[in-house]
Order: sequence, then C-alpha cells, then structure tokens
Amino acid sequence: MAIVVQKYGGSSVADADMIRNVARRISESFNKGNKVVAVVSAMGDTTDDLIELAGRITPNPEPREMDLLLSTGEIVSSTLLAMALHAMGYKAVALSGPQAGISTDSSFSRARITGIEPRRIIKELDKGNIVIVAGFQGLTVDNDIATLGRGGSDTTAVALAASLKASICEIYTDVEGVYTADPRIEPEAVKLDEIGYEEMLEMATSGARVLHHRSVELGQVYNMPILVASSMVKQRGTVIRGGKNMEARNKVRGIAHDMDVAKITVTNVPDRPGIAAAIFLPLAKAGISVDTIVQNASANNITDLTFTVTRNDLVKAMDIIAPVAKEIGARECLSDSKLGKVSIIGTGMQNTPGYAAKMFQTLFEHSINIQLITTSEIRITCIIAEDKVKDAVRALHKAFELNKG
Amino acid sequence: MAIVVQKYGGSSVADADMIRNVARRISESFNKGNKVVAVVSAMGDTTDDLIELAGRITPNPEPREMDLLLSTGEIVSSTLLAMALHAMGYKAVALSGPQAGISTDSSFSRARITGIEPRRIIKELDKGNIVIVAGFQGLTVDNDIATLGRGGSDTTAVALAASLKASICEIYTDVEGVYTADPRIEPEAVKLDEIGYEEMLEMATSGARVLHHRSVELGQVYNMPILVASSMVKQRGTVIRGGKNMEARNKVRGIAHDMDVAKITVTNVPDRPGIAAAIFLPLAKAGISVDTIVQNASANNITDLTFTVTRNDLVKAMDIIAPVAKEIGARECLSDSKLGKVSIIGTGMQNTPGYAAKMFQTLFEHSINIQLITTSEIRITCIIAEDKVKDAVRALHKAFELNKG
Repeated sequence: MAIVVQKYGGSSVADADMIRNVARRISESFNKGNKVVAVVSAMGDTTDDLIELAGRITPNPEPREMDLLLSTGEIVSSTLLAMALHAMGYKAVALSGPQAGISTDSSFSRARITGIEPRRIIKELDKGNIVIVAGFQGLTVDNDIATLGRGGSDTTAVALAASLKASICEIYTDVEGVYTADPRIEPEAVKLDEIGYEEMLEMATSGARVLHHRSVELGQVYNMPILVASSMVKQRGTVIRGGKNMEARNKVRGIAHDMDVAKITVTNVPDRPGIAAAIFLPLAKAGISVDTIVQNASANNITDLTFTVTRNDLVKAMDIIAPVAKEIGARECLSDSKLGKVSIIGTGMQNTPGYAAKMFQTLFEHSINIQLITTSEIRITCIIAEDKVKDAVRALHKAFELNKG
Repeated sequence: MAIVVQKYGGSSVADADMIRNVARRISESFNKGNKVVAVVSAMGDTTDDLIELAGRITPNPEPREMDLLLSTGEIVSSTLLAMALHAMGYKAVALSGPQAGISTDSSFSRARITGIEPRRIIKELDKGNIVIVAGFQGLTVDNDIATLGRGGSDTTAVALAASLKASICEIYTDVEGVYTADPRIEPEAVKLDEIGYEEMLEMATSGARVLHHRSVELGQVYNMPILVASSMVKQRGTVIRGGKNMEARNKVRGIAHDMDVAKITVTNVPDRPGIAAAIFLPLAKAGISVDTIVQNASANNITDLTFTVTRNDLVKAMDIIAPVAKEIGARECLSDSKLGKVSIIGTGMQNTPGYAAKMFQTLFEHSINIQLITTSEIRITCIIAEDKVKDAVRALHKAFELNKG
C-alpha cells in the first residue's frame, strides 16, 4: 500500500466548510487504497493574528516564546481536520510536529529540520488511521518548539514524504500548478505537466511564488516527486521530479519575473583583495539578502560593483554601504529602486547556443533596456525597468513559443 | 531561596493589559528573592471559543483531538505572559505542560496527573528564569496531550508546588479569599485568614466555588499551603493549610450553599442486597454524578431511597431510573427540581454536641422546611427549597456568629 503525503495551505482550511472540503479530498485518496499523511498550515490569517496578539504585549517578542505561540495555529487546524474526518466516518489522528517525530535545530523562527523519526506516524498508519500533522514546527534537542519560517509547511510535507518513503508529496495550494509564465500577466501561459527540480528552483528563486525553494531542494536531495495542484478545483497540476529525459529536453521551460528589485552601484571601487568582503559582510550581518552581484571589468584597478536587494531593504542597505564606500576610497553610491527582473529558465540552455542572443534581441525589439545580466546553468536573468517587466514577460513567452506547452 | 508557585485564572489574563498586570505581580514576588513558577489558564473565553470552533466541525469531537485543540489556549497565554515579563526586563521562559514534565493518565478531557518530573523547571529556575507553565494539560504515556478537566489549572499549580517542594502555592483568582458565606448573599460574611484542608474540601463540595476540590485534596496529601487571593486587588487572602491548632478549633467556620439541586425519590423499594447497586450503577455508567444519598429506615423490608443530582441531569436520571424502579418492584419515582442545599462546616463539630440542633432550630425559626439531612465529620447539610436558600445562609451566618470572623 503506497504512502501519500498531502499538504494543504492556510487559505485551503480558512473556515469549517473549507476544512470539510479538505477532509473530503483526503478521504478520496484514502479510499483509493493509499495510506495518507496530510500536513496542514494554520487556518487563514491565524498566524498573523497571533503575531498581532504578541505585538500588543511587546514590539520585540523573544523568538523562543514566539515560536511556541505560533505553533498553536497549526495544532488547531490539524485537530479540526482530524475531527472533520471522524465526522465523515474515517479514523484519523492529529499530531503536533513533536508528536510526528520532527526534529529541528534551535534557530527559532527559521529552524531547519534536522531529522524525522516517523515511528509514531507509521504506527498510526498501520492502525488504519489517516494521520494529520501540524506543519511548520518541530522539536529542538532542548525539547523546545521551533518553527520553520517561510515555506515551513511545504518543507514539513516533503521531509515527511522522504522519511516515510512516500510515493509522492502532493502540495495543494491556491494555484493550479507551475505555469510557463504568470497567467495574470501572460494569458497564454500554459500549465506544465512536469518540471525538473533545478528548473523549479530557478523559477522559485526568480520570482514564481508557487513553492518555497527549501521544499524543492529537499525534494531534489531525496528524489521525491512533488505534485503542485489546486486545493479547490480538481485539475491535473504540475509534477516536479528528476529524470534523464528532462535534462535532455533543451528547451526554455518558463519565464519568471520579480517586481521587487532595487539596485545599488558603488563606483570607482579600488580593485584589490578584501574589498568585496568589506562591502558584503556588513550587509549580511544586518540580515540583508543580496541577490544579483555584478562586478564590471576592471580598468586601472578601478571597478564598479553593482548588486540588487529587495526594495524594503534599500534604505537600510544604503545607510550601511555609504560609510563603507567612503572608507575604501570608492567614488559614490548610486541606487535605483524602480527595477524588476525577468528570467528564462530551462535545463540544458547553456549547452545550446542562441538562447541568450534570442532573449536580448527580443527585449531590444520591444525597446526594453537591459541594466544587468546574470546567468546560471539553466537560467538567464535580465534586470530591467519595473514598468517594462510585464511587456518583457509577454514578449519572451511568445518568442520562445511557450504558449504551445 | 524559596520556590513560590503562583496560578492565574483565565479572567486574570483576558487581555494584554491584564497580562501585563499579572506580569507585574509575578515580578514583585521575584524581586523579593523568590524563585517563581507561574501557572496560567487560557485567556478569558478562549476555551469556550475553541469548543465552539470544534462544534462548527462536528457535534461529537473525538476527546483526544479535543484535548490537543484545547491545550493550545494555555500555551498562548503562557507565551504572552513570558513575553510581558521579557518586555519588563525579566528573564522568563514559557513551558507547555509536557515541557514542564507533567504526566497524566489517558482519560482525555478529565485526566489525572500521574507524576511530575520537574528537571526542566529546576534547570530554568537555576538559570534565573521566571518559569511560566501552561496549566490544565499534561502528556500521557502514549505521548498524547490530555487536559485535566474542571479545576485543571489549580490542580497543575498545587501538583507543581508539591513536586518542587515550594514554600507555598498561591492561587490568584476573581475572588478575594474564602468567606464565612457567599458575600453576594450575606453582606456580613467575613474573609477567613486560614482554613483547614478538610473544611475547605467540604466548602468546595458544598457549593463554595473558590477552588476545585481536586486541588485542595492534592494540597492536603502533600501538606502544601494554598493561598487563595484576588489577582486584581492587593489584599490578604485565605491560606488553606493543615496543623493541629486548626483541628482543635471546634467552631463553625463557614456556611456553604448550592442552588443547583434536584431530588429523586424511589418509593417502596424492596430492602434487599443489590438494590442500591441496581439503581446507582446505571446512573454512574451514564456519567451522572449522584450527590447526597439517603435511605430511610426500613419497615417491613420496604424502604424509600432518595438522592440528589444536578438539575441538568434530572431528566436523564429519571429516564434511567423509571424502568429500573419498575424492574425491582418499587412503587414509583418522584422528583423535585426546585431545591438547594445549605451546609455548616467546621472541624471538630462532631465531637461537640449542639451544632446540629442549633442549625435545625434556626431553620425552623425562619419557617424553612428541611427535606433531607446529611452529615460528614465536619459538615451538616440540609436540603431545602431553592427559594429559601438565601434566607437560610443569612440566618445561619448570624446564628453561628460568623460575622465576628
């Protein structure tokens, strides 16, 4: 009997009717003869409500207590889901993260799963139970509750699927799958039946908000197929998986975009060892994530260093970088907050000439100026003006014939 | 350094301001040099809200899942209380029941504490932390969460105090202590500085809703002094404790009353072995608590059997008893739902003649008819008409000169 792990997000269990709907979905998989483990997020806005509740007490809640507080949200939804299954006549049991055997490190609010001991889950499955697991949480070595941070319940689901050697991890969410581009921008975008882990990772980190990259990485490590599909409508979703046939595909698979890009350029930086560290270490210490970094060709040991951050972090980053720039003898710090990025993604692009040229030519034909270019093995990204991003997505979607699926 | 265990009820932590108020109270005890462990109930109506939430899913939630659901209420309030202490500059740590080392049996919704392993609490106290413990909950041998039922958080507090060998267990609540009678009925009622465990037990089971009898029993077993005082106003409360001087007091200590009494009389019951069991076993199986039981003197092997239940249980009890009465050859079942009871309580009464006579005479002088009488070593209870209960409390309070404290 195959084990199937399913995951339902907070918007799928926002009220009693939706919880009953999810219970029906789970029971259908159970009735097909599967052993089902369902991971569930907190109902609707519960997590935000708990954060607000803590905010009424103190602006700076201790992370350990905050995690214990937030962990209750997923416990509530998992118990209600188990009750809904009971009411439909199914045997079901709700488990908190610790009860499910999920261990994490002690980085409260952004913990990593360090291991899973699925003995209890297996025991309950063997008793004929559907097992509901509270997502987003686990137990540290000190017997404290830690939450997993962004994408936490997805990560719980994939990790559980791996440890249970499930046949598939099904993530049910408010999108219907992975598209060749954002359907809200490109109406001709096509849902992909399959996509490789690497490609999905590049999609996720390039702005496609379907799955957090943590869960995709975990799926890749354990070679666990991940289905992404709608929790509302019954439609075939997208399966993320590995496999040779995919690597040989040699094709652009999708266009990703991100509207939230700000750029900082430090000009006339002396090109000597240690300069990059001098600039980026203080940013890292301040918790600012730097995305793209480009250093232009050096002339006379003088270079321009450009990098991007999210718009939220721009002011803070400039405050940190300005004195550093002065100290190292750079000329000035320039910033531009009205940028976006557009990426084409596909395995094997690097071995096939012409993709980059075609991308640049397409953008040129639509009078879109490219400010920065970065590439990975399976991705080419251009930083462009924010107000050109939608045009760029549509133009590239057409140029690479993605509407043909 | 003395360990003090405090307990704050749900009405004391109903919102952010009240949580801050409780944090201040805790910090005052800490500043006096105590090691403080505070047990907290769920905020205000949280438990009722969670029950209602489950009710929207199913009318008959599984007790195991219900307990896991309800346990989140106390976790929320305990984390917020720890955060409030942090915000005031104190070191504090919130622990769930399982983290606090509280073990229970597996009787979900009415579990009993089977043991406490306070290692974690002691470790945190030794690190200089104020320890906040989520009341009302513990862990079963199967690693499930069970709640303790009525009076659960009080019981948690007394059990923790016993296992930590605390100097005192302080229960802060919405009453200011134990009074000689309910002050809402008898304005001249006096707050007692001290009361013995036995007396308090009789008060609790005779209708004085200050402390659940479970926590008093536990205090008695471990000889743990329990202070009952207001969480709002700063006033000396009542200490419940043992001691020889108290047993020698020979005095009525208080008048308890209960408005919620219904009586069932089975007439002409054949007086033979097994009859009482035939009547009371089916009631126990149906979960109906029988309070007072009186069997009148038997004549010709025929007797009348009278007992009381809460009003809520009356219809159900009659439905169960009527066929049983027929089966055993009794004449009929009579019921009266408009009854109450009034009790005088005091250690050593039994060894001193005159108390019972004085009680009956007082009720007679106020034209209050006595329907049933029961006594324990330290209590005399009369079942009377509900609409006479208030008069009876006032008359007895005066007759036994309790307004003199």
